[in-house]
Amino acid sequence: MLTDKIRNKENGIILYGITPPKINHTEEEIKQIAQKHINRISNLDIDGLVLYDIQDESDRTDEKRPFPFIKTLDPCEYSHNYLQELKTPRIVYRAVGNYTTETFTKWLEFTKEGGQQVHSVFVGAASHEQKNPLTLKEAYKLKREVNNNLCLGGIAIPERHTKKHDEHLRVFSKKDASCEYFITQCVYDVEAAKIFLTDYAKYAKENNYEMVPIIFTLTPCGSNKTLDFMKWLGINIPNYLEEDLKQSGDILHESVKLSKDIFEELYTFGLKRGIPIGCNVESVAIRKDEIEASVELLEEVKAIIKKYS
Amino acid sequence: MLTDKIRNKENGIILYGITPPKINHTEEEIKQIAQKHINRISNLDIDGLVLYDIQDESDRTDEKRPFPFIKTLDPCEYSHNYLQELKTPRIVYRAVGNYTTETFTKWLEFTKEGGQQVHSVFVGAASHEQKNPLTLKEAYKLKREVNNNLCLGGIAIPERHTKKHDEHLRVFSKKDASCEYFITQCVYDVEAAKIFLTDYAKYAKENNYEMVPIIFTLTPCGSNKTLDFMKWLGINIPNYLEEDLKQSGDILHESVKLSKDIFEELYTFGLKRGIPIGCNVESVAIRKDEIEASVELLEEVKAIIKKYS
Repeated sequence: MLTDKIRNKENGIILYGITPPKINHTEEEIKQIAQKHINRISNLDIDGLVLYDIQDESDRTDEKRPFPFIKTLDPCEYSHNYLQELKTPRIVYRAVGNYTTETFTKWLEFTKEGGQQVHSVFVGAASHEQKNPLTLKEAYKLKREVNNNLCLGGIAIPERHTKKHDEHLRVFSKKDASCEYFITQCVYDVEAAKIFLTDYAKYAKENNYEMVPIIFTLTPCGSNKTLDFMKWLGINIPNYLEEDLKQSGDILHESVKLSKDIFEELYTFGLKRGIPIGCNVESVAIRKDEIEASVELLEEVKAIIKKYS
Repeated sequence: MLTDKIRNKENGIILYGITPPKINHTEEEIKQIAQKHINRISNLDIDGLVLYDIQDESDRTDEKRPFPFIKTLDPCEYSHNYLQELKTPRIVYRAVGNYTTETFTKWLEFTKEGGQQVHSVFVGAASHEQKNPLTLKEAYKLKREVNNNLCLGGIAIPERHTKKHDEHLRVFSKKDASCEYFITQCVYDVEAAKIFLTDYAKYAKENNYEMVPIIFTLTPCGSNKTLDFMKWLGINIPNYLEEDLKQSGDILHESVKLSKDIFEELYTFGLKRGIPIGCNVESVAIRKDEIEASVELLEEVKAIIKKYS
């Protein structure tokens, strides 16, 4: 069970991440997409399914968004209404800025019914759709009050550590606020990840804290345009990896190969230092070859975990 | 011959770097040190001997210098007066801030006598011993006027690239000013080096420039105090490498192993991208085991170059 693995701080937790269908689909189309999701995911031997809560994010930069933003279904509703057949535990992302105290409390009440099947990650986003948006701090407080047993994760961004050198402190502060694991933004910058992990382990040791799992997100990249989109989202891709990707002639498979190497480096790095490392393979694209690449990457990751177990 | 290898932009140029004896030695002691240098270096199969021009550098930081500063003999005079027996081509560092136009011109005249045996690297330092110190730009101009045939190198600092992103431009600007190769500061930050090399190769390609050799300096580290001194000098050591070094129980051999891995990564990186990479093994310590470690590292580096040739 995912909850147990998280609470035992196990190595090698494996997640698979998808986005719910876009809201401009018909009911019939959504059901078809859901069936495909169920078929694909029930065949994967994973610990949990991540469902993203997609936001526009256009207000975080002045640069033009490479892809237009189209809203997606609420991940919790999609999971509950369309994926019931699927028995895989869920990790549902919640962009807390889209909620008020009332609507968030209501959702937290609802999560009690899901028991150990429902996990969540709160994202403190810059969306201002609500007049009195919830802050991350308030959301953590409500979670502890309404459903403290909900197995909650936080976001970790190793790239931020390179500039501000305090990502490990943010992580421990979120841990104090009841986060039991962390999922990173998509990682192509291994160096930033290693520097973050080192400070994370050092701080834990110095303060006698236990380390919770850090789950690194890997994302196959299907085209130069997707690469630009990743950069637009704030993902740091070292210049030499960007060149390798662009000059490979097959960016999708080169990105799978790179991501596999990145995971192996981080997983063995964690093993050596006693840091529980997991993996979240993100499949946010809809092209068939990109979906297949995500499944291929997932299998590679499982092989790496097996190799070192 | 070193000059030919540089001008042919060859891969795998190998240098060995030493500091001249300190000035507080007696004439007899200096002769003894010189004899040891001659014995050691004549047994090494290298392309050139680097002789450093040591400066205090205390004015570049407010932090306390971990080791006291003691002046060393002028590297050019030491080479000329004490190492004549040694036939290895020399690369003599010149801290141009210690000269006036007159004294520097005189030295440049003197270098003509050495022919292809004498090479130099000018360092634009913050030393203010002279009232009208020479700038790097003026020194390059004098070199072109007085002895344009002198095979001149420049300093490259990949770490600087991480912050300012313009080290490749500095390098090409120095190349325009007649530098024919570059020697880096001691490198423990492979990531910075790879990012710098990528921009160096990209800029060369975009502007149809030829790439000159980049010679990476490796320095075995014999103690925690030396490690602190390296950091004081501005050398970036990623936190995880610093931990590996400190926790190894044998920092000297761990640093040799790390330096060897760093060189292999950079050398193969250069081979893949057509960038001529060389190596300068620095032996600035005087302890016997540290000197032996530098010779061991040099042999490892030679084996790597052979392996990929």
